[in-house]
Amino acid sequence: MSEMLDIGGVASRLNKADNILIICHKNPDGETLGSAGALYWGLRSQGKTAAVFCSDPVHPRYDYMELELFYDQFEPRYVVAVDIAGTQLFGEKSAKWVDRIDMCIDHHGSNSGYADTMLLDETAAASAEIIYDLLVEMGVDIDVRIANCLYTGVSTDTGCFKFANTTARTHRVAARLIDLGTELQELNELLFENKSPQRIAVEQLALSSLEYHYNGCCALISLSRDQITAIGANEADLEGITSLPRSIEGVVVGLTMRQQPSGSYKVSVRTKVGLDATVIAKALGGGGHKQAAGCEVFGSLENAKRALLEETGKALDGSGLCPPEKPAQNPDTAEQAWAD
Amino acid sequence: MSEMLDIGGVASRLNKADNILIICHKNPDGETLGSAGALYWGLRSQGKTAAVFCSDPVHPRYDYMELELFYDQFEPRYVVAVDIAGTQLFGEKSAKWVDRIDMCIDHHGSNSGYADTMLLDETAAASAEIIYDLLVEMGVDIDVRIANCLYTGVSTDTGCFKFANTTARTHRVAARLIDLGTELQELNELLFENKSPQRIAVEQLALSSLEYHYNGCCALISLSRDQITAIGANEADLEGITSLPRSIEGVVVGLTMRQQPSGSYKVSVRTKVGLDATVIAKALGGGGHKQAAGCEVFGSLENAKRALLEETGKALDGSGLCPPEKPAQNPDTAEQAWAD
Repeated sequence: MSEMLDIGGVASRLNKADNILIICHKNPDGETLGSAGALYWGLRSQGKTAAVFCSDPVHPRYDYMELELFYDQFEPRYVVAVDIAGTQLFGEKSAKWVDRIDMCIDHHGSNSGYADTMLLDETAAASAEIIYDLLVEMGVDIDVRIANCLYTGVSTDTGCFKFANTTARTHRVAARLIDLGTELQELNELLFENKSPQRIAVEQLALSSLEYHYNGCCALISLSRDQITAIGANEADLEGITSLPRSIEGVVVGLTMRQQPSGSYKVSVRTKVGLDATVIAKALGGGGHKQAAGCEVFGSLENAKRALLEETGKALDGSGLCPPEKPAQNPDTAEQAWAD
Repeated sequence: MSEMLDIGGVASRLNKADNILIICHKNPDGETLGSAGALYWGLRSQGKTAAVFCSDPVHPRYDYMELELFYDQFEPRYVVAVDIAGTQLFGEKSAKWVDRIDMCIDHHGSNSGYADTMLLDETAAASAEIIYDLLVEMGVDIDVRIANCLYTGVSTDTGCFKFANTTARTHRVAARLIDLGTELQELNELLFENKSPQRIAVEQLALSSLEYHYNGCCALISLSRDQITAIGANEADLEGITSLPRSIEGVVVGLTMRQQPSGSYKVSVRTKVGLDATVIAKALGGGGHKQAAGCEVFGSLENAKRALLEETGKALDGSGLCPPEKPAQNPDTAEQAWAD
């Protein structure tokens, strides 16, 4: 297992190190890139040689970070992994570094401890929050570029301060980064108002397949393999689409059925607090967490749907969260007024 | 014009006042209600009689604020308007108070100065930011309910810290409210992951009407009167749908055409920085701001669309922001790789 370090210990080791290689996780997102970018520019500002390596290409959307990617321009003498919880997340091209990670900086409680030393802070919403503290400890002058990198990490990992991992500390770091000149409007537009046409097509398909069941307490969307292939959607385009049905007012169970290359349906079950998603998933051979579970269902779409809705109906019946299917006797209720 | 007060002046007047009526703007949103609710509970905590009045019904979604609505249970001796920039925003049932507003607390630079005294802070992203400072000045103990009201105001008026009005101060107020016990996860879910089925139907229609023009630099959606009527969508359900087309990667001009009861089309023009939306709107008899303008177009959908697209094409031609319509010679560009 890793030797655990505190911020001071990490700062002191980095101050002594040089020729530093910073590794991001595969399929890099704003969080791993922003963390790596901030650390890279922080080290550079102290006169050190450093570069960033990632197994997969970096989306041109992140060009403003001006990352210097590693192409063997120096012989790494100190290797740092940022925001990588386990070796399986390095990706193919990073695999050769897996056994020689000097330090890992991460916020995932599930980190497997693969690095020699580790700065792990589970209370941080994002690794970028930790990097911010680290750069302050190292005496780095946080300029606009570094602030932009850190803001990218903090904001993308919290869904722009909306997800449950957001804390008071997250907001305080954001406030400080804005003070330091983060280009807030440009970044928020770029990161949160910038869906790919393929993602838009996924949402279009998902919404056109939307069905309500059990008096609006269950919403279901389905995507066939042919549809996904036809629009050329990749994993990033499909990410988070499973949260769509649950996001509708009155919906307690949101179901997403995605057809796999084998023809079976991968089912995501998302529930609101009070209904255990694993009850539905387990009945169909799956599992997961209380508000987010999943399973695989075989057969035609209609048969798979029937089985899924049957289990959903049972779970809703027992929950007390869903009004009876029969319309209310008196249409002049407050609920009705708001449905107008 | 109003006498301008500072926070201290407002606190001192409220400390002396009693039987206080707090008025929200018509079609009340989270911001006006959260501001009013926080002020109401702050005054109540100091032993005062107070109530909240709004011309329109309050959505049951905001029940957690536990607002005491005004029904003539006392004779108001001091009337405060919150987040109301002008008298036209009071609404029909509030009209009788318009001429006797003792104090207005607002953050809109356009405030017409209709109240006897005013606390106006244009630098605040939301009136709730001002109310937070005011309650601190008044020595109010900000409990969870007040924190929830203030968080609602601050977060809804900034689109959960995403809109251009968000500042470091906004984040600092949010951090402080979280420290004070704001029920963050519940509120974010309720306020930002809770679309009405009618809103979902609007998005479904909008996406199914989506057309790309000028090599993906222009996206256009259209909603007919019959469609809007059929889904029973109200103004709140339609709010912000105009930002959808511009939110697509590569789109420089987003156009939304909404048919009016008269049959004509209300057009919203939204552009990315670098292209002036008013150029398009003005050419068709409208106007507005650089990134958000509008106009009214007459005739059939096809004719209206043709006129609109013609002006959009001219604006794009002159902007240098849009690549030529002809497909690139070499499909192996970085852009193409990311489209896979």
